[in-house]
Amino acid sequence: MKIALYNHLLLTPAQRDRLDIVLVSPRNPLNIGAVARAMANFGFARLTVAAPYAPNWREAKSAVGAPEILQAAKTTESVAKAVGQCSFVAGTGTLTSRKSEQEILQLQDLAPRMLEAIANGGRAALVFGSEKHGLTREDLSYCHALVEIPTDPQQPSMNLGQAAAVCLYELARPVANPLFIEPVQVSADSDALDRLASLIEETMTASDYSPAAMRAANQHGLRLILRRLRFSPHDTRRAMGLFRRILWRIRRRQPRTNEP
Amino acid sequence: MKIALYNHLLLTPAQRDRLDIVLVSPRNPLNIGAVARAMANFGFARLTVAAPYAPNWREAKSAVGAPEILQAAKTTESVAKAVGQCSFVAGTGTLTSRKSEQEILQLQDLAPRMLEAIANGGRAALVFGSEKHGLTREDLSYCHALVEIPTDPQQPSMNLGQAAAVCLYELARPVANPLFIEPVQVSADSDALDRLASLIEETMTASDYSPAAMRAANQHGLRLILRRLRFSPHDTRRAMGLFRRILWRIRRRQPRTNEP
Repeated sequence: MKIALYNHLLLTPAQRDRLDIVLVSPRNPLNIGAVARAMANFGFARLTVAAPYAPNWREAKSAVGAPEILQAAKTTESVAKAVGQCSFVAGTGTLTSRKSEQEILQLQDLAPRMLEAIANGGRAALVFGSEKHGLTREDLSYCHALVEIPTDPQQPSMNLGQAAAVCLYELARPVANPLFIEPVQVSADSDALDRLASLIEETMTASDYSPAAMRAANQHGLRLILRRLRFSPHDTRRAMGLFRRILWRIRRRQPRTNEP
Repeated sequence: MKIALYNHLLLTPAQRDRLDIVLVSPRNPLNIGAVARAMANFGFARLTVAAPYAPNWREAKSAVGAPEILQAAKTTESVAKAVGQCSFVAGTGTLTSRKSEQEILQLQDLAPRMLEAIANGGRAALVFGSEKHGLTREDLSYCHALVEIPTDPQQPSMNLGQAAAVCLYELARPVANPLFIEPVQVSADSDALDRLASLIEETMTASDYSPAAMRAANQHGLRLILRRLRFSPHDTRRAMGLFRRILWRIRRRQPRTNEP
């Protein structure tokens, strides 16, 4: 399967609706809210809380400004019930001492696997464990794969809300073909750059910037620099306005009377 | 299905040390802690807090389990000071009504641009605004680009800690194909551009280029244009030489006697 097209979304909105985000016994209401917010940020709507701690879950749902996603969330008594309709289930976590009993997926390989599962009308789930313990061996036994977020070995464990944000970004982000070069700003044409260069040279002369012997070299240098800097037509006009004004000021016959 | 080999990191640890994460006036100590944690998760160490609210910053630093990154963080009085040594500065945010004055970068295109800046021994910065307002127009005038996280238009605004996690993941994640970065020119650092801007402003004033009422707007415009044009340190020095000469010429008390 190939998914490389620029400006192509990894998972389309319709595909995102085939994905359940499952939190297993989350403890901290702020974290629950943060997961819901990340879901809203990246266009996911289906949240399931498995085996919730009732008071914490109530607090999360009743928080001021709690996202709609929390109101619409489903609760189940177990992970098994939460992923019952899914044909692909990915658990998240970091392997420390334990050897995984599941296939290990790099986060970047998750989207293709989800799409594969969804392609035939199936559903998929992405499961996050509780803040304290992560997913248990039992939880993971319902997962087809363990997804690893590529964190630093010195500090592998992520905050729940941040882990969810990173995973959902990875699933929803637009894919860009690295060879596609976006057209950049319009550059001023060569004649316009030369007009600007002439004006700057005139200013150099009027201000005794360099001896006559250096003028050809300065002219050459100016041509190079103006092209390298990629002046736009607008930049060129502004710079010309400034140098015209400077020239006019330098050439005024009268000395300024209000100078210090 | 083909599984790619993710053997190459987008930014190596040494390259990550060339990147400053800058928070501008962050309000919530929990968010400050979350940013530091995401930095530790993805192997970034250099945090600067610009214009901090002193009590909130103290609270963040003294929190139980606060990461070392917070202890080692630098504080500066302004964004300008925080990014003074950087030759590439990216601000984060979401464009809503306002049209951007900077180049807009998709998050996926950030790593190559950072690498470009870092390739020649320069430094780069990634700047996050406060939770309430994001980056101001003034803050953004110190940025070469505005990075957009591809969030849903219905809920574009991300939590600070989550936005940082997503950006840092994107910069640090392993990629299948090493990005080949062509060595390009070194850009002048932010302080050097500001010195040049001041000199040009002085010249504008000395040559009566614009009424006093326009000075703030001109100052803002100058910051933008100088960053967009990607002046090298050498270009900056040459331009300063020219404007110093012009100023000197304008300020001479005596009228030129040999003028036509």
